Parts: sequence; C-alpha cells; structure tokens
Amino acid sequence: MDYYPVSIKNLIRSLARLPGIGQKTAERLAMYILQQSAEDAHQLARHIVELKKRMRLCERCFALSDDRLCRICSDPSRENGLVCVVEQPADLASIEKSGAFKGRYHVLGGVLSPMDGIGPDDIRISELIDRIERDAIREIILATGTNVEGESTAAYIAGILAPLPVTVSRIASGVPMGGDLKYVDQVTLKRAMESRHGI
Amino acid sequence: MDYYPVSIKNLIRSLARLPGIGQKTAERLAMYILQQSAEDAHQLARHIVELKKRMRLCERCFALSDDRLCRICSDPSRENGLVCVVEQPADLASIEKSGAFKGRYHVLGGVLSPMDGIGPDDIRISELIDRIERDAIREIILATGTNVEGESTAAYIAGILAPLPVTVSRIASGVPMGGDLKYVDQVTLKRAMESRHGI
Repeated sequence: MDYYPVSIKNLIRSLARLPGIGQKTAERLAMYILQQSAEDAHQLARHIVELKKRMRLCERCFALSDDRLCRICSDPSRENGLVCVVEQPADLASIEKSGAFKGRYHVLGGVLSPMDGIGPDDIRISELIDRIERDAIREIILATGTNVEGESTAAYIAGILAPLPVTVSRIASGVPMGGDLKYVDQVTLKRAMESRHGI
Repeated sequence: MDYYPVSIKNLIRSLARLPGIGQKTAERLAMYILQQSAEDAHQLARHIVELKKRMRLCERCFALSDDRLCRICSDPSRENGLVCVVEQPADLASIEKSGAFKGRYHVLGGVLSPMDGIGPDDIRISELIDRIERDAIREIILATGTNVEGESTAAYIAGILAPLPVTVSRIASGVPMGGDLKYVDQVTLKRAMESRHGI
C-alpha cells in the first residue's frame, strides 16, 4: 500500500477491519469518502463517535437504547405480559421488521455455549426470571436461534421456567416460506415432518 | 428502521450512502462498530476526519498526497523523463500495484467527455504540456482507460503532443492474461488480432 499517502492508508486499514470489507472494498470506500463533501464525511465520523457515546442497554429488556428505557419498553401500545426472548439486539430488529410480534422483548446477550465457557450466569436468564413477577409476564416465547446453541439455550430456559406460573412456547421451525423442497436441508425437513399439523 | 435507536439509525443512514453498501450491510457494519472497542471506533472516525483535512493533490503530478509533493515525485529512485498519464488516482494505484512502471505519473483528473460537457480545459492537459520542458520529459505513456472516453482522450493528447519533442506511446490492449478466449468480448478479440505480434 506504499503508493497511498499515509492518511488514505490509515483509513483503508480501519475500514478493512470491518466484517465483510476486504482490502479492495476498503480502498474503494476510502476513495469515495475522499470525494464526498467535507460535510458528509464529517457527519459519518460524528455518527460513529455518537453511537459509541450515546448507545446503552435498556434497563428493562436490555435492547439497544438511547435512553433509560428502549422505544419498545416505553411504548404504551405494546402488549404487556407477553415477552419474546432473543439472543442479540439484531434478532430483535429482525422480528420487529416482520411485524409479527406486538409484545415486549428480553435480550439474553448470548447463548449457552459450554465450549466457549458461556454458562447460565453469563447470559441474562436471572434477569428474565426477575421480570416475570415484576412485569407481570404471563407468556414467554423463546426465539433463540435454531442451531445447537440456540436450541439448548431454549431447552434450558424452558426447564428453569417450568415450575413458574408462566406459559412458555418456542417459535416454530420448518421449511422457510417460498422455499423449494429440493434446496431445504435434511434436518429442517425432518423437523418440518415431525411438526406437521392438520389443515 | 423505527426499531433502532436514533444514534444507530443515523450511522446506518450514513454508511448506506457509501457505494456498494446497502441497508443490510450498513446494519451489520453499525452493529459491528457498536461492539468494537471505543478506541477502534474513534480511530475510524478520526481517520475519516484526517483524510478530509490532510489530503491534497501533488503540485507536480496531481496524485493524492499528504505533502506538497507526492511520494513518487519526491522519490529520487524513480526514473525521470518517463511519465505515465492516467485518468484518476485509483488508476495510479493499480499500476503501482503491478510494479510494472518505475517512472513518474501525471493524473488528468478525468477524461474528455463531450456528452458530460468535459472538454480539454477541464482535465490537466495544459499542465502536462507545461511539464514536458520543465521536468525534461522524453517519453509519455498514455494509460487512460480502453473505453470510448479513454481511447478518445488518448488520441486527443497524442495529437496535441505530436509536434513536441517527446515520444508518445499507448498501453497495449488485448486478451487479459489467464483469460479464456470464449469469455473474451468481440471488441477485445478484434483488437488482439489487429495488434498481433511475431513470436
């Protein structure tokens, strides 16, 4: 990269650290930023700094938030008592995009993973249990991933919640909508067969 | 995007303006920056601001530079009198990567494009002519693109330079190395045939 001046080289290196951004893309982005108006470039820089400064976790559900409570927790139109448990804030965003859920959330901040040394105390399970009484939760939907860690985390939480006065359910898994059966993997097909329902 | 707090939404919008970065990628990058250390994120922001502040054009060849003269113009080991003419700074970087050229450069800053109202006075042709005597240039290699604008810009400059005491050449065009003939377009094949040479 010796043919680039130091200040471009620095930016290319910083950009190339981002996920999915390789050397070539970083070069292209740096060149674009160079040609952007000073205002646009400074705005991008300012938004990065502000994100790090302002972003925190909602005190109730641990979603990303600018304030003490997140938008969803402070929205009176959302259904109380119905809580969807997700692994990460990005999962919450996916469910919100679908528009399929009008209750509240609880972000675990991870999944159980003994291989990585992540146990029940490292994700927000006790915080979920505390909320059941405090927030008068009557139904919990476990929406962790459908991989090994997500499934075992859901099973673990369901076990913990079993003696408590709360209904626990798990999001359905099966063939994705619009999916062509020949492209669907074996495990998903098996699950779809087992979970078949009358029509 | 209402499920994101304002500070994430702002950054996603700024990132999504970059070329090749769509909504989904911008979301992923913003989430990553959120999880980066404060130091890494601030460094990225600082590098953007510094780029806009420090970057300028080399006074001699108009390449990007941190100083009055670029690295290549101030490098005594580069061959004097041999100048490669390119359209943009990114083209210079590509040629430098190839390691095939050890002379100096001249960045036009564009190509002739009557459709877009870009004429000879809008790109740095007169600056190139001035350099011939001042920098004792004896050979000029025209390395503009091989599209219509690049070809006609090269032809125009070659015409202007014809009466001057300088050798003018054009980079070769033909089938790319490692190329399979069946994937090469007709125009390139025609050019490769016309430019055939004895072996």
